[in-house]
Amino acid sequence: MNMIVQKFGGTSLADVERIKAVAAKVATTRREGHSVVVVLSAMAGETDRLLGLAKTFSRQPSGRELDALLSTGEQVTTALLSMALSEEGITAVSYTGSQVRILTDSAHNKARILEIDERKIRNDLDAGRVAVVAGFQGTDRNGNITTLGRGGSDTTAVAMAVTLGAEECQIYTDVEGVYTADPRVVPDARRLEQITYEEMLELASLGAKVLQIRAVEFASKYLVRVRVLSSFEEGPGTLITTEEDIMEQALISGVTLNRDEAKVTVVGVPDRPGVASTILEAVAGANIEIDMIVQNTGADDTTDFTFTVHRNDHTATLEILNGLTDALGARGVEGDNKIVKISIVGVGMRSHAGIASRMFSALASEGINIRMISTSEIKISVVVDEKYSELGVRALHQEFDLGENED
Amino acid sequence: MNMIVQKFGGTSLADVERIKAVAAKVATTRREGHSVVVVLSAMAGETDRLLGLAKTFSRQPSGRELDALLSTGEQVTTALLSMALSEEGITAVSYTGSQVRILTDSAHNKARILEIDERKIRNDLDAGRVAVVAGFQGTDRNGNITTLGRGGSDTTAVAMAVTLGAEECQIYTDVEGVYTADPRVVPDARRLEQITYEEMLELASLGAKVLQIRAVEFASKYLVRVRVLSSFEEGPGTLITTEEDIMEQALISGVTLNRDEAKVTVVGVPDRPGVASTILEAVAGANIEIDMIVQNTGADDTTDFTFTVHRNDHTATLEILNGLTDALGARGVEGDNKIVKISIVGVGMRSHAGIASRMFSALASEGINIRMISTSEIKISVVVDEKYSELGVRALHQEFDLGENED
Repeated sequence: MNMIVQKFGGTSLADVERIKAVAAKVATTRREGHSVVVVLSAMAGETDRLLGLAKTFSRQPSGRELDALLSTGEQVTTALLSMALSEEGITAVSYTGSQVRILTDSAHNKARILEIDERKIRNDLDAGRVAVVAGFQGTDRNGNITTLGRGGSDTTAVAMAVTLGAEECQIYTDVEGVYTADPRVVPDARRLEQITYEEMLELASLGAKVLQIRAVEFASKYLVRVRVLSSFEEGPGTLITTEEDIMEQALISGVTLNRDEAKVTVVGVPDRPGVASTILEAVAGANIEIDMIVQNTGADDTTDFTFTVHRNDHTATLEILNGLTDALGARGVEGDNKIVKISIVGVGMRSHAGIASRMFSALASEGINIRMISTSEIKISVVVDEKYSELGVRALHQEFDLGENED
Repeated sequence: MNMIVQKFGGTSLADVERIKAVAAKVATTRREGHSVVVVLSAMAGETDRLLGLAKTFSRQPSGRELDALLSTGEQVTTALLSMALSEEGITAVSYTGSQVRILTDSAHNKARILEIDERKIRNDLDAGRVAVVAGFQGTDRNGNITTLGRGGSDTTAVAMAVTLGAEECQIYTDVEGVYTADPRVVPDARRLEQITYEEMLELASLGAKVLQIRAVEFASKYLVRVRVLSSFEEGPGTLITTEEDIMEQALISGVTLNRDEAKVTVVGVPDRPGVASTILEAVAGANIEIDMIVQNTGADDTTDFTFTVHRNDHTATLEILNGLTDALGARGVEGDNKIVKISIVGVGMRSHAGIASRMFSALASEGINIRMISTSEIKISVVVDEKYSELGVRALHQEFDLGENED
C-alpha cells in the first residue's frame, strides 16, 4: 500500500464540474489501493475576491485578519471535495491547517511551517479514509491562523509528504509537466520526463510557474519525489528527483525567458571599495529586489555598475540612484526596460566545458547582441534586447537539441 | 467599565457599507468606555449560497463537512469587521469558534454549547481590545468544526454574555424591538420597552422571528439581560429580563399570528386508551412535528381527535392517517390548511381571571368562529379560518389596549 499526496490548485477547482473531476481522479487513485492525502488550494479567483473585499475596508489590512479571511478559501474546497468523494463512495475527511495542526511561525501572510502533527491523518489513512487537507494555511503556537503566502499549497503538499513519508507528491496543474521551453514560444518544446531539484529550482525562479520555489527547496532537502502533472490530461508528467535517480542526464534541461526585468546602469563610478554596497543598500532600503549584478572595470579609474530589477521597480530605482550620483561621484544613471533575460539550465553543464561558448555563438549567429551575462553552477543567463526574446529562445532550444524532432 | 456583548445578524452585514456601519456602532460603544465583545453571523445570503454549493455535490452532504463549509461564513465577517474596526482606530481581534474554544457536543448542524473558554477574550478585553467572535459555530472535543443550527448566533451571543458575566447582551436585528403585534397587520402596534423571558419564549415560538428560542431559554436560565434593537435605527429596543425587573407589567404583552399551520382531524375514533398515542407516533415517525392537540369526547363512544402540523407537512400527514383509519377504527380523516393560529401572550394573565372570556367574546363580536383552543400559563391560542387573520389580530390588539393611541 503506497502513500501518495495529491495537490490540486485553483484552476483544477474552478467550478463544480472540475471539483467533481478531481474527486473522480482521487477516487481512482484510492481504488488502485493507494493511501491518499489530498491538499487543496482555494477555488480559482477566490483568494483574489477575498483580498479585494479586504481592500474595501483597509488599504493595509492586519496580517492576522487577512489570514483569517483568506484561509476560508481552502476550507470551502476541502469540505466540497470531501462531499464529492463521498458521492464517489470514498470516505473522506476535511481538515483546516489548524485541525491537522500544521504549526507555523507567526509571520502572517508568509508563515513558515515548523511542524506537522501527523496523528489524525495517519488515523484516517489506517482506516482507509482519504484525508483532504487545506493547503496554504496553518496555525501558530497561540492558535492564530496563518498563511504561507502565494503558492503555499505546494509547500503544504511537500511538507505533508515529508511528514508521512509518502512515496510521491503529485502536483496537479494546468500544464502537462515541465517543458524544455515555453511551448507558446517554441512549438516543438518537449515535456521532460525527469528533472533534478536543482534544475527545477532554477527553472522555477526563472519564471516556469508550475511549482513554488519553496516547495522545491523543501522537497530537495528531504528528497521527496515530486511529480508535476496535468489535472485535465492523462499523462506521466515530470518527475522531480535527485540527480542519482536520473539515468541519462541531458546536457541542458531547458531554456527559460523572463520578461519581467529591467536594467539599470550607474555610469562612470569611481573604482573604489564600498561603491557597490552604497548603491545596493540604497536600492534594498526601498525594498526593491535586485537580480543580476555585473560590474566591469574600465580603462580609466571608473567603472560601470549594472544590475537588473523587476520592471515595476524600474522607475523607483532610477529615482533613487539619480539622487545618489553626486554622493557616488558617478557620471550618471541609465535605464533600459526593453530587455529580457534568457537562461539555459542543466546539471549536465557541470561536467561539460564549452556550454557557455556554444550558447553565445548560437546567439551571435542570429545577430543577437548580449548586454549582460551571469552564470551559476547549472545556469547561464544573458540579457538581450526585448525584440530578440523568441528568436533567442528558439536558437538556444535548437542549439542544445531540446526539441521533439531532435530525439 | 461595563461589559457588553453585541450580536449582529446577516442583514446587518449584508454588504461593505453595512459592515462599516456596524463597525461605527461598535466603535461608539467602545469609546463610551464599555468593554465590547461582538458576535457575528455570516453575510446575508452567504449560508444559503454555501448550502446550495454543497447540494450540487450531494443531496445529503455529510454533517461534518457541511459544518466545515458553513462555518467559513462567519469567519469572513469577523475578519472583515476587525479590519473595519481597525480603520475606526479600534484594535480588534477576530475568533472562530475553535479559536475561542467554544466547546460543543458532536451533533453536527445542531450542536449544543457545552463550555466556552473565556481566557483569550478576557485577555483582549483587559487590554482594551474588542473581541469579534464568529457566531453559530464551535468545535467538539475531537477538534471537528460544529454549527449550532439556524439562528445559532443568538445563542453564541447569550452564551458568551453568560460566560463573561456581561451586563447586557444586545441583539441587533432589522426591527426596532419586540412589538405588541406585527406592525404590517396592526398599524398602531407598539414597541415593548420590556418583556419577560417567558413571554419572549412564547412570542418567539409563535412566529415573532426576532430572536432564536434557544437563545431566550439560555438567557432565561442564567438571567442574562437581553436587548433586541435595530442596527439601522437609533432607539432603546426591547429589554428582555425577569418578571421582577419589570415594574409595571401589562396584562397582555402581545398578539401573534401564525400562518404556517394546518389542521388535521381524525373523525369518529373509538374512545379508548392508546388511540391518541397510535396517531401521534405514526406522525412523529415521519419526522413531522405536531403543535396544538385537541380531543373532545362525543355523545357516543367515539371522539374526534384534532391537531395542527406545519403546512408543508399537511399532505404527508393526511396520507399517513388515511392509511391508518382501518386500524384505528376511525370514520375518516379531514384536513384544513386554510386556518391560522392567533395567540395572546402575557405573564399578567397568571393573576387575572377572565382573560380567556374577554378574548373569545372579542372574536365573537367580530363574527369570528373559533375552531380550536389551546392554553398555557401565559398564553391562549385559537385556531380560526385564514380569512379572519387580520381582523382577529386587530380585534384582540384593541381589546387588550395594546396600541400606541391607547396609552
